[in-house]
Amino acid sequence: MTIWSFFTRASRAFHDYPHASKLLVLCTVSGGLVAYSESQSDIVSPPSVDINQSEPRKKRVVVLGTGWAGTSFLKDLDASMYDVQVVSPLNYFAFTPLLPSVTCGTVEARSIVEPVRNIIKKRKGEIQFWEAECIKLDAKNKQVICRSNINNNLVGNGEFHLEYDYLVMAVGAQVNTFNTPGVLENCYFLKEVEDAQKIRRGVIDCFEKAILPGLTEEERRTNLHFVIVGGGPTGVEFAAELHDYFQEDLVNLYPSVKDLVKITLIQSGDHILNMFDERISSFAEQKFTRDGIDVQTGCRVVSVSDKEISMKMKSKGEVFSIPHGLVVWSTGVGTRPVVKDFMEQIGQGKRRILATDEWLRVKGCEDVYAIGDCATIDQRKIMEDIASIFEAADVDKSGTLTIKEFKDVMDDIIIRYPQVELYLKNQHLGDVTDLFKDSEGNYRPEVDIEQFKLALSHVDSQTKNLPATAQVAAQQGTYLSRCFNRRNECKNNPEGPRRFRGRGHHQFLPFQYKHFGQFAPLGGEQAAAELPGDWVSMGHSTQWLWYSVYASKQVSWRTRVLVVSDWTRRFIFGRDSSGI
Amino acid sequence: MTIWSFFTRASRAFHDYPHASKLLVLCTVSGGLVAYSESQSDIVSPPSVDINQSEPRKKRVVVLGTGWAGTSFLKDLDASMYDVQVVSPLNYFAFTPLLPSVTCGTVEARSIVEPVRNIIKKRKGEIQFWEAECIKLDAKNKQVICRSNINNNLVGNGEFHLEYDYLVMAVGAQVNTFNTPGVLENCYFLKEVEDAQKIRRGVIDCFEKAILPGLTEEERRTNLHFVIVGGGPTGVEFAAELHDYFQEDLVNLYPSVKDLVKITLIQSGDHILNMFDERISSFAEQKFTRDGIDVQTGCRVVSVSDKEISMKMKSKGEVFSIPHGLVVWSTGVGTRPVVKDFMEQIGQGKRRILATDEWLRVKGCEDVYAIGDCATIDQRKIMEDIASIFEAADVDKSGTLTIKEFKDVMDDIIIRYPQVELYLKNQHLGDVTDLFKDSEGNYRPEVDIEQFKLALSHVDSQTKNLPATAQVAAQQGTYLSRCFNRRNECKNNPEGPRRFRGRGHHQFLPFQYKHFGQFAPLGGEQAAAELPGDWVSMGHSTQWLWYSVYASKQVSWRTRVLVVSDWTRRFIFGRDSSGI
Repeated sequence: MTIWSFFTRASRAFHDYPHASKLLVLCTVSGGLVAYSESQSDIVSPPSVDINQSEPRKKRVVVLGTGWAGTSFLKDLDASMYDVQVVSPLNYFAFTPLLPSVTCGTVEARSIVEPVRNIIKKRKGEIQFWEAECIKLDAKNKQVICRSNINNNLVGNGEFHLEYDYLVMAVGAQVNTFNTPGVLENCYFLKEVEDAQKIRRGVIDCFEKAILPGLTEEERRTNLHFVIVGGGPTGVEFAAELHDYFQEDLVNLYPSVKDLVKITLIQSGDHILNMFDERISSFAEQKFTRDGIDVQTGCRVVSVSDKEISMKMKSKGEVFSIPHGLVVWSTGVGTRPVVKDFMEQIGQGKRRILATDEWLRVKGCEDVYAIGDCATIDQRKIMEDIASIFEAADVDKSGTLTIKEFKDVMDDIIIRYPQVELYLKNQHLGDVTDLFKDSEGNYRPEVDIEQFKLALSHVDSQTKNLPATAQVAAQQGTYLSRCFNRRNECKNNPEGPRRFRGRGHHQFLPFQYKHFGQFAPLGGEQAAAELPGDWVSMGHSTQWLWYSVYASKQVSWRTRVLVVSDWTRRFIFGRDSSGI
Repeated sequence: MTIWSFFTRASRAFHDYPHASKLLVLCTVSGGLVAYSESQSDIVSPPSVDINQSEPRKKRVVVLGTGWAGTSFLKDLDASMYDVQVVSPLNYFAFTPLLPSVTCGTVEARSIVEPVRNIIKKRKGEIQFWEAECIKLDAKNKQVICRSNINNNLVGNGEFHLEYDYLVMAVGAQVNTFNTPGVLENCYFLKEVEDAQKIRRGVIDCFEKAILPGLTEEERRTNLHFVIVGGGPTGVEFAAELHDYFQEDLVNLYPSVKDLVKITLIQSGDHILNMFDERISSFAEQKFTRDGIDVQTGCRVVSVSDKEISMKMKSKGEVFSIPHGLVVWSTGVGTRPVVKDFMEQIGQGKRRILATDEWLRVKGCEDVYAIGDCATIDQRKIMEDIASIFEAADVDKSGTLTIKEFKDVMDDIIIRYPQVELYLKNQHLGDVTDLFKDSEGNYRPEVDIEQFKLALSHVDSQTKNLPATAQVAAQQGTYLSRCFNRRNECKNNPEGPRRFRGRGHHQFLPFQYKHFGQFAPLGGEQAAAELPGDWVSMGHSTQWLWYSVYASKQVSWRTRVLVVSDWTRRFIFGRDSSGI
């Protein structure tokens, strides 16, 4: 009865002192001890609904979206400085890197989500949250129009608008089908938690259907043919998960069809994981070949029907079709309609993706910020400003720059144009002054504007778009919240680099992305990782590194405990194959 | 790193010796130790799909359904004696008594389900499972027609038929709306796991919608009005769970609408929980009143629209309507269409529910058995057989029975007509011979047929239908599997009572239900229980009893661990309010 009496006492303590610090001692399977003390002393009771407040004293910040970018922004924002209102069609944050694990039940869907209200109630200051979808951004009138996406018969008009002083767009992206016919109708996706749940049920459906009496062997084979389109980290991880799920669990439950299962991975490029180091890429390809996963590289999907998927072999130009049971489409992201419409309003209509400057401010629209997958940073080219830079650096107005004059502005240049640093590194130049060397490697005492242009002419080729990853989105959210928190402070004491085309300094440092590496789990308790400093790590130990990193990155202690216990459960009992 | 190295070793051991016994030591939160050794040595690899086998040697048993009845039957059946084929639209068994806990996330849906294939692969002998719905029972040709209910584009005809030697119907019942208009369209139910998941999402939807800007207070109130129809154990438990969910978790996340929430429980009878002892009934009513749950007894729902629920106050005959946000309908069960159709075929068309005899054999149909909620036992009345009994007992054919003659057949009578025992108990008669007393309390030496009839004339009033509970279904499944296992044995040595209307003995003892008591959790860590021997227990300690009984009754160690860890999680972190 120890366990029950513990519960009774714990329960009583919990109810008697709801706001006291809770000390939870969780005994993990290894016998290890995790002591966790969560102080709730900073909980501020959220506000009453008072949307018609006249003349708010605080500036209103409207945040759209609660994915990686939006949540990171909210987690670090000092909400006591602003009237913060959050709108998102989902009332939770999802730890999306674990979505492939959810597809096969290695981790449960609920273990990777945390209610937004839980996250915001622990923040300093008042934050209001509305579960609704932003259906229109009205840049001219500085307002957003939102509509509740709850599709039942509840009363009340679910449409409302919110005016903003600052708008933070973190609405994410949508699946990109590249207009391939039949994809939306016949494919599964892997962007949302619900997608992963659908795949999980879909996989079991394929097995249950394939095993029924009366099917031909060909029909069974078709139903058990799983096709994954896209050889990026998500597609590869899903293929690996599916293979493990089958090999470790389903093979025992559906032994009669075990020889009929096939997994095909289709990649348009020449290699899977081609954003990774090529050692990782070929390690993954070799492992998949050993596992019997059919990797079709250099193939472009031209259409998907309910029964077949047609593709074109790039090398031969030949189009062929294969029957499928289930297709998962995982090939990059596209712009949401509401963002497209907004881009038209602000003169970005011709662009493919919303552009911000280096401070994450949407170009052509004041007081609107965009972070995460919904936008990209349009890095200013150094050549556009080259004359202004030269003029600003040429203090004595001699028409030439000395090394000293150049050095004096170089720090500001490197901050304002990060491509310069990348260029130096890729050209193996130790110092910025190396740019002053002539073609024979001798330092020039001075350079004129033409020589200066020539020295920097190739720098802009190093400008790179950031990938649409959780890591980038999270860093942007955190960066932006820091700017919002220091808005008053930095007004008087700007921290940014000097303005070459104007006077004074930029208020804030521009956003700078720091890459902490990337994982690609490959199944069978093996993973590959690209770590900072061009380190590459592959194999079982990398998988353990993956476990520890992903456990530590969870948004709350609750999800951390749940994810670790899901992994433990999977080790002990395997994955659940119930069709729910 | 201890935890990781444990994992590595455990994982390796698991993969190297997949069939070895696994010893799992699970360290629970209390520090208590549960040692669990699961022997897998009896796993027999399931058969290949071979449906067209000609002339099977073993008799084929087709089992329809994998609920409490079907699963209990399968768990104890010696499948090596038969060719066993199971058909169910769900590929899992669900521990339905925990469904109310799933509606509010106290327990996760996946924690209460166990895949049927997991259950059957551990059985002795071969069992085949098909995920399909039986759409037609063809009693004449001894076959069932089934159709896959997987609604996607997988290839192959999902329809097939199975011939049977013995059919075990365990298809359960469906929701009974009593033909009340609008119920099917506008109410939530609590029969399946998916129902519980829908309610969970629905409750959160109500809160998210109610809190949106621009709604009137009246609209918020309407959306937060939760109505439960049916004051049985399920409805009462759901009301209690919902109240706890709100008080313990949601009130912190939606503080601005906390005064607008209302829970109404509608019961047509005069009291809720009226199948329980009246002390429990009034304890529950008092607790609910204290909790602010509005209990409307003596009310019959006449219709449900998307916005309102209309009911009739029985006492006054007055019809009135109240607006609602969410209605859960939980009022007993009805017969499924496939069973109705079958009843027509076998001449039971006029009955409301399928009738079996005391051996669970469907009346009017050979070799078909029905267990669980889909059927009821039509207990043979003693008065129908009274002449035969008298004749059989009157060994010396004297036309009168002596006490000795009566005593000789009494054991068989009590087994064949269990209402006799109930009658003796209710009449406070110590012994069957008390029936021989005359009106003045004196023993009569002999009775004639008329006196015999008179003595037993009130016995049949004690005949009772068994309730549609998991407990009854499980006992019937186990009972029937025992009969199947002992079929050959009992053919030669029948174990049943003597036949009064024929010769010899019945092959098996008739089914006899043993009531182990019943729980009604009432929220706030309190429960009520009716235990054997007319014991009644209420309060916090009963809730702990409930926890231990429900944990011990789980179908597998996997679900047991999951359910207990869900309870623990709820104690520590509360319930999740993510809308997934």
